[in-house]
Amino acid sequence: MRILVTNDDGILAPGIAALAEALAPLGEIDVVAPETGQSGAAHAITFMTPLICERISVGGKPFGWSVDGSPADCVKLGVRELCAERPDLVVSGINAGSNLGVDVIYSGTVAAAVEAAFIGIPSIAISLEAAGGFDFEAAGRHARDIVARAIELGVSPGMVLNVNVPRLDRGGPRGVRVVAQSTAPWTDTYDRRIDPRGRTYFWLGDAGGRMAEDNADTDLVALRAGFITVTPLQYDLTQYAQLGHLAGAWPKG
Amino acid sequence: MRILVTNDDGILAPGIAALAEALAPLGEIDVVAPETGQSGAAHAITFMTPLICERISVGGKPFGWSVDGSPADCVKLGVRELCAERPDLVVSGINAGSNLGVDVIYSGTVAAAVEAAFIGIPSIAISLEAAGGFDFEAAGRHARDIVARAIELGVSPGMVLNVNVPRLDRGGPRGVRVVAQSTAPWTDTYDRRIDPRGRTYFWLGDAGGRMAEDNADTDLVALRAGFITVTPLQYDLTQYAQLGHLAGAWPKG
Repeated sequence: MRILVTNDDGILAPGIAALAEALAPLGEIDVVAPETGQSGAAHAITFMTPLICERISVGGKPFGWSVDGSPADCVKLGVRELCAERPDLVVSGINAGSNLGVDVIYSGTVAAAVEAAFIGIPSIAISLEAAGGFDFEAAGRHARDIVARAIELGVSPGMVLNVNVPRLDRGGPRGVRVVAQSTAPWTDTYDRRIDPRGRTYFWLGDAGGRMAEDNADTDLVALRAGFITVTPLQYDLTQYAQLGHLAGAWPKG
Repeated sequence: MRILVTNDDGILAPGIAALAEALAPLGEIDVVAPETGQSGAAHAITFMTPLICERISVGGKPFGWSVDGSPADCVKLGVRELCAERPDLVVSGINAGSNLGVDVIYSGTVAAAVEAAFIGIPSIAISLEAAGGFDFEAAGRHARDIVARAIELGVSPGMVLNVNVPRLDRGGPRGVRVVAQSTAPWTDTYDRRIDPRGRTYFWLGDAGGRMAEDNADTDLVALRAGFITVTPLQYDLTQYAQLGHLAGAWPKG
């Protein structure tokens, strides 16, 4: 089993080091990750500018390739050019902070996994809930258990699992829950300010929260309750339920 | 009807000017768009840095707000801060180039529409197939027809329509087709080069094409055949078909 490990917090982030080490017993590991943090990069890709790649060592030992691009760039370039052989699995993380609900669409960690699925390689995104600090070593052990179980279950092309590990400073997770993505929206707030040159600017604030979640069987609710969440994702965004209704508005002539 | 118009090619792009003009007969128009082109920005959002906003005039007439952020930032900030009233509809485009199949996930034009849906505002993304140049004026008329028909049909919160207009240099579109998003992957290729300082770099090439499309009822096939395509999108990425299978792997304890 060859595993490509990537992330969106950058190749020197502690979460990817913990993940690469935790997954080592499961197979051959290639690390290809962004040079710098790419949080909120979503599924950006780089095509108008070149991508500079560099071999990175950590503590005197070869660790992987850094790419001055997005998480999705790392997967594309890793699979096509940088990995010695085509990976069997892509694992992205461990992200410093959860990727739940509608945030999944903003997440570079998840975008890397979805990009792998585009190329026909199964993938798993792993994020750790914030709790002041992050215990990536413990989260790495949970990540390995989840990845090992997924391999045992049989990973198939196009499979994308979004995994969130709850904060670990209050005792171990209560178990694993397979749940849907929450669709509860945020109530964003912006701070409006005036810069030293008199121009208006805005800064996305932290005051807003999420709207209430009606559905108890979601990642949002299960993680808050202390469970590791596993959510299978798709990249066909068609809302099939609406196709028929709309077809009536534009009948085939 | 208040319509927020945005795009990912930047506020000075010809496509957004044509769109704002074409939609003017349908309601009050607010324009909030990125300062610079954001193609491939996907669903990036800005929270670690401020967003500087500026009122832009075109030809001596007030046109709208420019924001030094992503298309999703423009929608968030437009709805929360810049528009005089909450919009009833967000229309994003007209993008210079189609947004079809898996590219939908890379597209800033579509991300703006999905962001609107998060906030509970119906939205329509409009893109024009490349044909050497772009006849945005003609595409604007088709965009207006589609938007007017959608309003007539009844736009509901959470509705996202992804619309592609075929190249118009070979005669008018053959009609409108309501179709699913293609999931045919790309066969990406990278050019491997050496920079003047001896470092390796890669550049995403144009040589690769899309894999064959098996399903005839998709945006990819219908646009190539000369139809305007309308695809309803969702932002719940849960692959519900896999939930049960995976629940067996991690049974509730």
